[in-house]
Amino acid sequence: MRKVVFGGANSLDNYFARNDDSVDWLMWSDEVTEFLADYWKRFDTIVMGRRTYEVSLQMGGGGAYPGVKSYVFSKTVKTTPAPGVELISQDVAEFVRKLKSQEGKDICVMGGGLLARSLFQADLIDEVGFNIHPVLLGSGIPIFHEIDHQIDLELLDCKTLKNGCVLVTYRVKPPGEKRKKVAKKALNRKKSGKAKIGAKSSKAKSTGKTTKRTRK
Amino acid sequence: MRKVVFGGANSLDNYFARNDDSVDWLMWSDEVTEFLADYWKRFDTIVMGRRTYEVSLQMGGGGAYPGVKSYVFSKTVKTTPAPGVELISQDVAEFVRKLKSQEGKDICVMGGGLLARSLFQADLIDEVGFNIHPVLLGSGIPIFHEIDHQIDLELLDCKTLKNGCVLVTYRVKPPGEKRKKVAKKALNRKKSGKAKIGAKSSKAKSTGKTTKRTRK
Repeated sequence: MRKVVFGGANSLDNYFARNDDSVDWLMWSDEVTEFLADYWKRFDTIVMGRRTYEVSLQMGGGGAYPGVKSYVFSKTVKTTPAPGVELISQDVAEFVRKLKSQEGKDICVMGGGLLARSLFQADLIDEVGFNIHPVLLGSGIPIFHEIDHQIDLELLDCKTLKNGCVLVTYRVKPPGEKRKKVAKKALNRKKSGKAKIGAKSSKAKSTGKTTKRTRK
Repeated sequence: MRKVVFGGANSLDNYFARNDDSVDWLMWSDEVTEFLADYWKRFDTIVMGRRTYEVSLQMGGGGAYPGVKSYVFSKTVKTTPAPGVELISQDVAEFVRKLKSQEGKDICVMGGGLLARSLFQADLIDEVGFNIHPVLLGSGIPIFHEIDHQIDLELLDCKTLKNGCVLVTYRVKPPGEKRKKVAKKALNRKKSGKAKIGAKSSKAKSTGKTTKRTRK
């Protein structure tokens, strides 16, 4: 099944852009250009929220990218979109779930974190990737908004660029993957007779007395 | 001069702990234990805020660590602190500036981000380091609170652990370091006769038309 990928360049304090949407702090390099040229080959679809679309309109692009179909989620935008861009007023999660079930390349979640939040909430994001810049912006447009459950990740790749940026890529573990593994392990232990009633798992043991943070 | 270091283990969405202060999501390993044993050798002083102190009291430690002097910043705490712990009611920045000018090992900023914010605001932090865990907690105690100016960093080290954690260490560039460098460069150019009036810097050129974020 095609994957939904969320990511972008961010500051260490997890902003995507300054409050005025500017990204003058981004560090471009040959390494980044090379990475992005390769990165974009995997996508034929972009999904974005109203805010990202409006910034795109201001820049003159209007959310259209050659060879890529863009979907803009908004119930209020009334402009006629550029060719290749479609306005979607229906539920984000429902629409992206349908997109995922269709044939195609991967789907890029573009821009800030509000759309991503809806997709995280619905467990529809399969991969996240960031180009962590060596800067604290102090304020700006956040990547992450609060979500109501924990999302476990698996580090797929970490690469340090010459300019001090750190490129990280993670697979999003589907809900229940961790629990399933534990359950399987527990089952095996039970079968081999090693299980003890009331025994703490090694995880519980290692964090049992130190579940409150005071010292890293 | 001794350094002020802020850091800890965090989730990818930059939380230090869950909303109830729990850190059951932390991944312990031999690699981390080894790193921390070495890490703590550089400190003889800890500074912490009221909230971190209260969590420490709940755990029974009371902010005291062998061989380390702890300072707790609070104007409201009235408890008698444990030996080695001192309550400080004066201005955080003023006090830490004085500490820095004294002889000693490095100073660790412990716990959440409110104390760190005051110290970032006053440009008193010299190094930041995080053990980025492969997890999105969704909500919790944030590492970073808004600050009123940008802080430029230099990546000193990035190490990937076997469990998927990423250890990053940055030097905080003192305010003006970047500007000074640019000024020096411009001066050299002027001296060698290469400067052109009205010429854009390579940075301005590369970001001039794309200062609004729509596509990473």
